[in-house]
Amino acid sequence: MSQLLEKFQDYLNEMKQYNHIVTLLYWDMRTCAPKLGQADHVEALTKFSSKSFEMGTSDELGRMLDALSEPQEYEALDDTWKFIVTRMKRDYDRDKRIPADVYEAYVRAQTESGNAWEEAKNASDFSVFAPHLEKMIAMTREIAGYTDPGVEVYDALLNQYEEGMDSATIDRLFSELKEELIPLVDKILAAEQPDDTAFCACFDTDAQRKVQGMLLDYIGFSRDAGAVGETEHPFTLNFSSRDVRVTNHYYENAVLSSIFSAIHEGGHAIFEQNVNPDYNGTVAGSCRYMGIHESQSRFYENILGRNRNFWTPVYEKLCGLLPQLAEVSEEDFYREINHVRNSLIRTEADEVTYCFHIILRYEMEKAIFRDNVPVKELPALWNQKMQEYLHVTPENDAEGILQDMHWSDGSFGYFPSYLLGSIYDGMFLDKIEEELGSVDVILAEGRIGEITKWLNEKIHRYGSTRTPKEVIEKVCGKEISSKPLLGYFKKKYTEVYRL
Amino acid sequence: MSQLLEKFQDYLNEMKQYNHIVTLLYWDMRTCAPKLGQADHVEALTKFSSKSFEMGTSDELGRMLDALSEPQEYEALDDTWKFIVTRMKRDYDRDKRIPADVYEAYVRAQTESGNAWEEAKNASDFSVFAPHLEKMIAMTREIAGYTDPGVEVYDALLNQYEEGMDSATIDRLFSELKEELIPLVDKILAAEQPDDTAFCACFDTDAQRKVQGMLLDYIGFSRDAGAVGETEHPFTLNFSSRDVRVTNHYYENAVLSSIFSAIHEGGHAIFEQNVNPDYNGTVAGSCRYMGIHESQSRFYENILGRNRNFWTPVYEKLCGLLPQLAEVSEEDFYREINHVRNSLIRTEADEVTYCFHIILRYEMEKAIFRDNVPVKELPALWNQKMQEYLHVTPENDAEGILQDMHWSDGSFGYFPSYLLGSIYDGMFLDKIEEELGSVDVILAEGRIGEITKWLNEKIHRYGSTRTPKEVIEKVCGKEISSKPLLGYFKKKYTEVYRL
Repeated sequence: MSQLLEKFQDYLNEMKQYNHIVTLLYWDMRTCAPKLGQADHVEALTKFSSKSFEMGTSDELGRMLDALSEPQEYEALDDTWKFIVTRMKRDYDRDKRIPADVYEAYVRAQTESGNAWEEAKNASDFSVFAPHLEKMIAMTREIAGYTDPGVEVYDALLNQYEEGMDSATIDRLFSELKEELIPLVDKILAAEQPDDTAFCACFDTDAQRKVQGMLLDYIGFSRDAGAVGETEHPFTLNFSSRDVRVTNHYYENAVLSSIFSAIHEGGHAIFEQNVNPDYNGTVAGSCRYMGIHESQSRFYENILGRNRNFWTPVYEKLCGLLPQLAEVSEEDFYREINHVRNSLIRTEADEVTYCFHIILRYEMEKAIFRDNVPVKELPALWNQKMQEYLHVTPENDAEGILQDMHWSDGSFGYFPSYLLGSIYDGMFLDKIEEELGSVDVILAEGRIGEITKWLNEKIHRYGSTRTPKEVIEKVCGKEISSKPLLGYFKKKYTEVYRL
Repeated sequence: MSQLLEKFQDYLNEMKQYNHIVTLLYWDMRTCAPKLGQADHVEALTKFSSKSFEMGTSDELGRMLDALSEPQEYEALDDTWKFIVTRMKRDYDRDKRIPADVYEAYVRAQTESGNAWEEAKNASDFSVFAPHLEKMIAMTREIAGYTDPGVEVYDALLNQYEEGMDSATIDRLFSELKEELIPLVDKILAAEQPDDTAFCACFDTDAQRKVQGMLLDYIGFSRDAGAVGETEHPFTLNFSSRDVRVTNHYYENAVLSSIFSAIHEGGHAIFEQNVNPDYNGTVAGSCRYMGIHESQSRFYENILGRNRNFWTPVYEKLCGLLPQLAEVSEEDFYREINHVRNSLIRTEADEVTYCFHIILRYEMEKAIFRDNVPVKELPALWNQKMQEYLHVTPENDAEGILQDMHWSDGSFGYFPSYLLGSIYDGMFLDKIEEELGSVDVILAEGRIGEITKWLNEKIHRYGSTRTPKEVIEKVCGKEISSKPLLGYFKKKYTEVYRL
């Protein structure tokens, strides 16, 4: 190994230590630290994130990346280190183009905007958030001008969360989907709906914790490389492939919410636990493509978790833990977990109408960045689109345009990832059935581990080293299309709703 | 404020950040991090503890402490900063006298010895641990020679854990105790014993968690400044008075263990939560005297928690959470939590025979450091003393001399703190009754908060700024004596056992 590479690795290792601590502080603040202990954690977090930021933008790092990119050094690297150097150099150069004062102002504005959003949501008053949203939009535009000069701004944003993705592709995918999904949902909603009375019971929260444990074990979450915490909003966080943590919430009146959050976060976690451990602590590890990441959590949650046969091997255990279900047949349980409803809140939507929640947000973001629709007109536009796609109108902005926090911290372009994940899932499902046979049969026979193994080998192990387009191409050998997802929806819901 | 003091405070603040991270890593390793994630945590722990150690022993710190100790600077300090400078200078000078290579060898030997002890205990084979114990004894002697030149070695060790304490005082206190305790225990054991059948039932571990929560709230543990975790060995850990965490274990067949661990650790935590917040992040905060600290945990656990009237306001709640107790009368519950038994394991002993477990260890430590008894003779000496005080003989070394980890990491002189804590408690109890009236009445009327308030004001708030002797003097106005503890034992157990 060259002396330069060795020095570079030492440098990355030092940076890794600071990132490790920042991750741990974040985890502890969310899952454990008491109210009065938060301030000291924030102080430490500020100190150690600055340290990590300084190292990530230092001239020393820049010089090492330049030197390692010289042909003689570069050609001597193995494929992993070639990827790491190329990717880090690109990010470094990109970030360096942002003037320091602009970046600092942006970070400050993010915090202020986050606070304003929370206040606005609690008061259900969009006007509190509006000036901050305007500022976040303007600053996002400005920064994209530095990081991606010459690229249309919304395409630049999409590309941040799902590399290689652009709005032309998304337009095509979402149009394909809409065309057939709108009449399908109309038919579903006109059909007889399942009776959800049994699920309105009160379910013990300790029992829900046990159900989560049972399901995580069942789908292949590794306890040796994983832990579980409790937070209001479920999330997954990873230190490395050796330590991946999920959280969940447990409400007595929402047992299905904790069950499907458990499977969803479990899917994210299984992904990270199975990334090639050689990539740990580098930009090659920990998948940074949000669409691909969501494709895995949503594959477990929807394609597997909402399949009738997923439950066959565990339904008895589930009823043992949740005695209220003893009187609910497996078939009625299956129908309820696929109950389609037009509703207001994205995170509570079923897998079918969820698509409309994302399409709406995508169209809103295009309206903002491409059509320059003024911020003050956005709530009305939101409500109009809710009516158009979901035939409901929010009573107030808290359950309307203020429901998600994404825009408050400037995460414009993130939302489409969720639906891209499902679109990829349709394609992965087709491919798995082609290679392994019927997923219904595999699940019914309790061989879910074979599916996890397939996903590990085809997708998870590569971490960030394959872009979304490369993943789809290598795994499916086809261009991205919404058709497989549509096919899955049509087949499944025709049967569930006896259409 | 002088520029020098300001610089010193900035320096301490920086050190505090590293200590904060070290504490957090330790907490997470014990309570959350999965098996495969431990190595990365250890790597970070090593890095950040070294950083903290370097800052705590740097020449820069030495120069600041010297300068702040000069009369002109020193006299300008307030009392808190006078304490901090004096204490840090003393510790700094002490630590600086240890040659670096000796200290490094000691730290290495500690780790090796800890591993050997674990191996020896699992195999129940003292010979595996013996050479390491010999080494720890020799190195402890050597280091005490540097840190406390001219002081008899075992006195120096006692003083490390309980400042101002020496073996002459302990000899007197323990003799006083033994003289009357041996005949008392003989009488207790000859009397009719309570029936413990009801406690051998299987108690749901989730219910035990809820009982812990109920008890912590009841005794005054602050949720805003506290958190709860789960570990095999219960402990308390604090970042500052604003974030104090306790752990517990829950075994289906040992419900009383989790109940009294909850109250014990709760007592430690209430202490730390109520230290003057101005002391946070300095040597004035977080009480460093083990006897005083144990006096508080043991006051809650024994003096309050094993009082009949402690349970009166909460017994119905307890039975609500543990339905198996519904058939156990409050009186039978009270008798069982004060069931005296000669047993082998210190941590499972009742409050009376617990004294013998400590006296035995104290005599062993004197035999080692004062009489130079060879290591190979220690197991026989242990067993002989077990027979003498507790009339039982361990079947093997795992339940004999290997049961505690303290000696494996060189914590010689620590054990007496536990019993000193109880001896102080006898004195505190007398004083509380003098000032507040009958503790029985206060507890029966659910006014436990008044006792906590008294302890907060008289003891907790001072953190480390008062030495144990000063605490006893200021609070009780008397010389330390075992008589009050003996009086408490005699009165209580005469009644419990109808002697």
